[in-house]
Amino acid sequence: MEWRVEKDSLGEIQVPADKLWGAQTQRSLENFPIGGRRMPIEVVHALAEVKRAAAIVNAELGELDAGLSQAIVAAAQEVIDGRWDDEFPLVVYQTGSGTQSNMNVNEVIAHRATHQLGGDSKVHPNDHVNRSQSSNDSFPTAMHLAAMKLARTRLLPALESLADALGAKSEEFADIVKIGRTHCQDATPLMLGQEFGGYRRQVAAGIERIRSALKGLFPLAQGGTAVGTGLNTPSGFARRMAEQLAARTGEPFVSAPDKFEALAAHDALVFLSGALKTVAGSLFKIANDLRLLASGPRSGLGELRLPANEPGSSIMPGKVNPTQCEALTQVCLRVMGNDATIGFAGSQGQFELNTFKPLMIATLLESMSLLADAADSFRERCVAGIEADRSRIGELVNRSLMLVTALAPEMGYDRAAAIAKAAHANGTTLREEALAAGVSEADFDRLMRPEKMARPHG
Amino acid sequence: MEWRVEKDSLGEIQVPADKLWGAQTQRSLENFPIGGRRMPIEVVHALAEVKRAAAIVNAELGELDAGLSQAIVAAAQEVIDGRWDDEFPLVVYQTGSGTQSNMNVNEVIAHRATHQLGGDSKVHPNDHVNRSQSSNDSFPTAMHLAAMKLARTRLLPALESLADALGAKSEEFADIVKIGRTHCQDATPLMLGQEFGGYRRQVAAGIERIRSALKGLFPLAQGGTAVGTGLNTPSGFARRMAEQLAARTGEPFVSAPDKFEALAAHDALVFLSGALKTVAGSLFKIANDLRLLASGPRSGLGELRLPANEPGSSIMPGKVNPTQCEALTQVCLRVMGNDATIGFAGSQGQFELNTFKPLMIATLLESMSLLADAADSFRERCVAGIEADRSRIGELVNRSLMLVTALAPEMGYDRAAAIAKAAHANGTTLREEALAAGVSEADFDRLMRPEKMARPHG
Amino acid sequence: MEWRVEKDSLGEIQVPADKLWGAQTQRSLENFPIGGRRMPIEVVHALAEVKRAAAIVNAELGELDAGLSQAIVAAAQEVIDGRWDDEFPLVVYQTGSGTQSNMNVNEVIAHRATHQLGGDSKVHPNDHVNRSQSSNDSFPTAMHLAAMKLARTRLLPALESLADALGAKSEEFADIVKIGRTHCQDATPLMLGQEFGGYRRQVAAGIERIRSALKGLFPLAQGGTAVGTGLNTPSGFARRMAEQLAARTGEPFVSAPDKFEALAAHDALVFLSGALKTVAGSLFKIANDLRLLASGPRSGLGELRLPANEPGSSIMPGKVNPTQCEALTQVCLRVMGNDATIGFAGSQGQFELNTFKPLMIATLLESMSLLADAADSFRERCVAGIEADRSRIGELVNRSLMLVTALAPEMGYDRAAAIAKAAHANGTTLREEALAAGVSEADFDRLMRPEKMARPHG
Amino acid sequence: MEWRVEKDSLGEIQVPADKLWGAQTQRSLENFPIGGRRMPIEVVHALAEVKRAAAIVNAELGELDAGLSQAIVAAAQEVIDGRWDDEFPLVVYQTGSGTQSNMNVNEVIAHRATHQLGGDSKVHPNDHVNRSQSSNDSFPTAMHLAAMKLARTRLLPALESLADALGAKSEEFADIVKIGRTHCQDATPLMLGQEFGGYRRQVAAGIERIRSALKGLFPLAQGGTAVGTGLNTPSGFARRMAEQLAARTGEPFVSAPDKFEALAAHDALVFLSGALKTVAGSLFKIANDLRLLASGPRSGLGELRLPANEPGSSIMPGKVNPTQCEALTQVCLRVMGNDATIGFAGSQGQFELNTFKPLMIATLLESMSLLADAADSFRERCVAGIEADRSRIGELVNRSLMLVTALAPEMGYDRAAAIAKAAHANGTTLREEALAAGVSEADFDRLMRPEKMARPHG
Repeated sequence: MEWRVEKDSLGEIQVPADKLWGAQTQRSLENFPIGGRRMPIEVVHALAEVKRAAAIVNAELGELDAGLSQAIVAAAQEVIDGRWDDEFPLVVYQTGSGTQSNMNVNEVIAHRATHQLGGDSKVHPNDHVNRSQSSNDSFPTAMHLAAMKLARTRLLPALESLADALGAKSEEFADIVKIGRTHCQDATPLMLGQEFGGYRRQVAAGIERIRSALKGLFPLAQGGTAVGTGLNTPSGFARRMAEQLAARTGEPFVSAPDKFEALAAHDALVFLSGALKTVAGSLFKIANDLRLLASGPRSGLGELRLPANEPGSSIMPGKVNPTQCEALTQVCLRVMGNDATIGFAGSQGQFELNTFKPLMIATLLESMSLLADAADSFRERCVAGIEADRSRIGELVNRSLMLVTALAPEMGYDRAAAIAKAAHANGTTLREEALAAGVSEADFDRLMRPEKMARPHG
Repeated sequence: MEWRVEKDSLGEIQVPADKLWGAQTQRSLENFPIGGRRMPIEVVHALAEVKRAAAIVNAELGELDAGLSQAIVAAAQEVIDGRWDDEFPLVVYQTGSGTQSNMNVNEVIAHRATHQLGGDSKVHPNDHVNRSQSSNDSFPTAMHLAAMKLARTRLLPALESLADALGAKSEEFADIVKIGRTHCQDATPLMLGQEFGGYRRQVAAGIERIRSALKGLFPLAQGGTAVGTGLNTPSGFARRMAEQLAARTGEPFVSAPDKFEALAAHDALVFLSGALKTVAGSLFKIANDLRLLASGPRSGLGELRLPANEPGSSIMPGKVNPTQCEALTQVCLRVMGNDATIGFAGSQGQFELNTFKPLMIATLLESMSLLADAADSFRERCVAGIEADRSRIGELVNRSLMLVTALAPEMGYDRAAAIAKAAHANGTTLREEALAAGVSEADFDRLMRPEKMARPHG
Repeated sequence: MEWRVEKDSLGEIQVPADKLWGAQTQRSLENFPIGGRRMPIEVVHALAEVKRAAAIVNAELGELDAGLSQAIVAAAQEVIDGRWDDEFPLVVYQTGSGTQSNMNVNEVIAHRATHQLGGDSKVHPNDHVNRSQSSNDSFPTAMHLAAMKLARTRLLPALESLADALGAKSEEFADIVKIGRTHCQDATPLMLGQEFGGYRRQVAAGIERIRSALKGLFPLAQGGTAVGTGLNTPSGFARRMAEQLAARTGEPFVSAPDKFEALAAHDALVFLSGALKTVAGSLFKIANDLRLLASGPRSGLGELRLPANEPGSSIMPGKVNPTQCEALTQVCLRVMGNDATIGFAGSQGQFELNTFKPLMIATLLESMSLLADAADSFRERCVAGIEADRSRIGELVNRSLMLVTALAPEMGYDRAAAIAKAAHANGTTLREEALAAGVSEADFDRLMRPEKMARPHG
Repeated sequence: MEWRVEKDSLGEIQVPADKLWGAQTQRSLENFPIGGRRMPIEVVHALAEVKRAAAIVNAELGELDAGLSQAIVAAAQEVIDGRWDDEFPLVVYQTGSGTQSNMNVNEVIAHRATHQLGGDSKVHPNDHVNRSQSSNDSFPTAMHLAAMKLARTRLLPALESLADALGAKSEEFADIVKIGRTHCQDATPLMLGQEFGGYRRQVAAGIERIRSALKGLFPLAQGGTAVGTGLNTPSGFARRMAEQLAARTGEPFVSAPDKFEALAAHDALVFLSGALKTVAGSLFKIANDLRLLASGPRSGLGELRLPANEPGSSIMPGKVNPTQCEALTQVCLRVMGNDATIGFAGSQGQFELNTFKPLMIATLLESMSLLADAADSFRERCVAGIEADRSRIGELVNRSLMLVTALAPEMGYDRAAAIAKAAHANGTTLREEALAAGVSEADFDRLMRPEKMARPHG
């Protein structure tokens, strides 16, 4: 392996000769052999977007000459395009400000920009690429960019498709009367389509919650530099950066009205994680219901049939399991634990800087991408293929005693209860006990129609 | 002690003769000797609002005669007015649908309404007071009413006052240059007013998050009855109930568009709890900063002086401690743990009903009232009385080496770093080392002005 | 209302004339109008045990004269006996060291001891009752005493009784073959007694975990005083205090080998809370299984019948719900959230003192007492009365396809799978398909015996 | 890319021709495009240990012929040796029983064993490699093996080395008197060595907690097969498997006394995670203290100097930050969130099987390896290089007012408080105010010796 010598303010250090990064990246690589999980590439790309925008704005404001600016823009674009993804080896568990990932991006871009300029002019990672910036504002700006992009391109589409799939099932099952269950006990009937409609509504409401929480990402920290004051930025820099990034992404990013808050706290991410946690709870409920409703095939509730995607057991031949439900519910619990991590991390800023930034963004992006992946897989390999066992469903609704509820408005709660109890005790039907209790056949037949119980009367 | 005999569908039971409640309340009292913590009275009052509205709407729709309706309205108003608070002895850890608290309210109102009617006509807790309702829709409706009210009357005002108090300090301290700290290490300067402005911003943004999440409480479950279908409600009942409750409270409550979701899930509460958790994280950060900035009096940072409210130590005479910060941060961690409880509870609904309702609402209301109380106390007994130690602050900013940052744009990061390092190693001032490094006195004096570092240049 | 004037180092303050407490308690009462939840009385009693022991040891070591010591011992005993429980009005959310509750105990005991001495000699809350102590060592000592006592007297007995009750059911149901369920899908058979045996084992293992974690409470902070050094204690004080408290309680308390750790961290409580959380998870699983197995009565699994303790529904006549399971599972989720609070709080000590002590102990004691109460109620009102529906259980086991597993060792997994799949697709029995596939009747009858599948062969 | 056709009970499927895995692995690869995070290789190796042991025991008990057994043993050893790590591509978020990872191991071993036998005899993944096993017992057995190994080889050594390093600093700093801080306020003095001794004690106690919790991993699920009954195992299989695995690993593994509990719950892992969380809390406290004590270099507490491992800032030249503390505290919060995930997952088993197994073990192993990595890095790059600034420490202790505590036993709390307050108000020294209050110089000099305050008197 060949090495070259690089230098930073701490002195010289050897860097692999074929790598584009510089001294600070190398130091970080050696100093943080922790966990092996890399800073998400989405954050790297977003930092490169920041560098690109800064090169443009710095040139506009006379902080950088045009040639340097163009070289940085071109180099940054290469990073954004994913050409150098292997040049960002740093891990999540590093400096709490993300300084080292910021320097990694600065170094790689400086290297490539220098190369572009033919070596005539040396591009400096701090003085040029990082010009008018600090890690303390660039990194949180990149956090917002990365999270927004993943939400728009992966999470929201996945949830929307899932809501649609549940909605389609709701329509498909609109005419199937089934027994309702409350407290896991037989209750009054509803339509199977209504049950799936409730699931759809949960996911749809979750999408709205995420959208609402995403608004908190629009204000960008950029321009605050080291502590929020904007030291070493030219006047107008913060505003122009937000405009550049908004134009580039199509998102209404603005310069954060209070940069001190934007560096020292990441409450917008905490709140967004709360929205993700809420969605995780919804999906858990849905997946859990489905596996219970599909329990069987012979000794369970058996109302639904889920697609059989793989042999379910290494020992029980022919077994098929609700594996997509299981993958999804596991994802949901991960997202819930992640929310605890993010919430606590958000509370732990000190003075002018929250130093849990890499943990917060890596954990948030993990939650988002896991939810997106799992929602897609669950939709495609489970929801879309769900079938209703109409005969079983009919059998279960007709034997239930809770249809007695329809008698209560006319005969009173207490007499209706006595009928249900008698049927339960005697193993008889409601009809038998109702007639014995003096209800006329005509009344019984008029009131006791499950399909009418799935809506208000009159 | 004297007893009377009451009866429900399970049979007879003895109830203390002087109590207004009936058989089901008594059973619950005996069946759940768990924890001793009562269902929050806000929920009881909100249930009484539901009963009052239902009596009106039932009469309008011909489900209840006018005399019964008026008696129920009058009795419900007594409960709402707090006259019978001692008649609601049931605890939080009971049936997961809150059925027993719903029946407690039904029974007390039935008892009082019967009394009002002079015993001529017996008011039935189920057939009359609970008419067109189920616990499964009434209880979650009451959850929304109670949470909304506590937010409006206690939590939001407390947070607004706190934001104002922080804002006032931000203005009071607007002209004080102080050292910034990132990574707990000396950084570039900012104004003390800016630091407090960041705190204010955190609280203000938190208020907006809570307001945004509260919107999720506007849709009411009422009218779904047992499983969401509206069985045993007259047509129009759900909509009219929402209108009644909206008119009564001044909040834009509406009938939930999907009652199945409204019974089986409480995602709106989970999301709201996430907003509370976010605020808790903000307040933790603020309180923690204040206690560190006020550390001392002689061997700490000593930039701030907090009010001395009580002797701080049982053994160290003369000690004064940041006790309001401590009370507040303890509250914050409670709210974070509560958020875990609420989130997990939200995921655990099964089929048509989430049966963690009492836990969810009691825990949410606890978080809200603790935050409100602690924010008020912290504002009144800590924030309002904070004083800045201008002399100490000036001393700390002037000796910092990080002012060197202002030199970097002109002389480059690497040379500026060398100056700071030399001053650190030699125990000298930046001025001494800068001049030794060839910076002119004029340049040094022009650039090295802390108060100018608290904003962008140019 | 009448008042008297009391004084502390901050000056004079009015105290209700009929109260035993002094100036510092009064200040705290006024300064912390937060939440209204009192410091658990167990902590107050435990602090009084500390005061009692200190009075004895101080006298032995010549720090306190015998008369004062005896008066303090007598007064402390009154507090321990619960005679003055109303004199401890302070709330949980106060100073993070518990200083004010410590002073509350000091003040009440000083008041009562002065009274005992006939007013001849004034007993001082700091100089005499708190002699050789600080809140910083007394309060954590009381935390250990209180938690240990609640564990021994309430939690462990409740869990042991529950384990016994589950064990009794395991024996009662030892001969009932039932269908097993994995992934909520039909699996191979087991005995119902084995299922309950698994539950019993979970609880029994939880008891062992709690016992193991309780050992961490034996080391006591007492003797560390303000920062852990033992300043202002006589030599031997720490050891003698531990001996006194051990003798008094019958628990092997010892003086903590490192007082710095004992003041600055409460890891032993965090670990204990982890044990409680583990138990909560076990109980959640058990209660959730029971409600699913008892689902029905007509359209669920219906293998078990739980006791009917109260009418289950305000709208559905005759409904009976698994309410004890619901109360218990709600408790479990509270305990899990509490564990998050306690864990976070444990990490937040700074320098020589963790200032989340009241929160930590109040939350831990809440977890312990809720688990104890709920375990007792669940055992008495649910587990003890569970009945098996043998006919339903037999019906479900006999129709299951997973009995095919018993064929696999002889005929191979792939052929056995084909038989199960054919039966599933054709709605036939395993026997029919096995015979069609060439299995002899004799082989089929030899292998396909559910009761033999509930153990290894041979 | 070339493909071959494989077959399982669901039919045919194409598998990359150069891969060793079979049909079920391929299906899982296609069915779970979720997250991209692979099942930890430690679990794969542990499963191979199970297969190896099973081949041996099956041969002993006459379930497998010797040739097949030897081939399986040899193939399993290759997997254990890491030769085929790339052949285990399945992700964490899959079937909740880990069935697919179990089948992945079965298939690869079957492939290699068949190859070893020269194709004369086809080794079947289910009938031979998985003989007498189910995923439901093999996977949890592998969970225990993997967690135990990682604890022994990585986590415990890392924590022990950290405890030693803290202990070494405790000795190095044994003679340095410093100011104590409680509530972040100046308190009485202690030795810097005592402070580090407290840290060491926290870590040492954490090691003991982990060891204690690891005991819960000794009972192995193996032999329970599908639902805990041991169906399709020969008599003695469970016991012999535990003996094999114990002999192989040197750990006292035993056959779980209750296999039903061992499949349906993983409370032992939940409890172990609680121990890890406790350690995370300890390390958070330690790292947070260190960064605060090292705050500065000029405007902070400045008592300690941490090693400068990298340039700290992209904008502030010369800045050095406590980056190892930051990496470690981020890890700690991850471990805390992971504990929430594991705890929730542990509670969610249903009937005979907990189906959150892959999530639980992957999350637990992540916590363990992160703690191990971070502890090593923190020790090597931070703790080992910490220096005390004796001059700064001396300055801070001498100016503190809390030394007044030493006067209290002789002159009383109230008079001592007055002296401290006067000095605070007047900006004077304790000596000046004490003398003014009538304390003799001799008494003052005798009592007011910081180094004597770091232990009990007499």
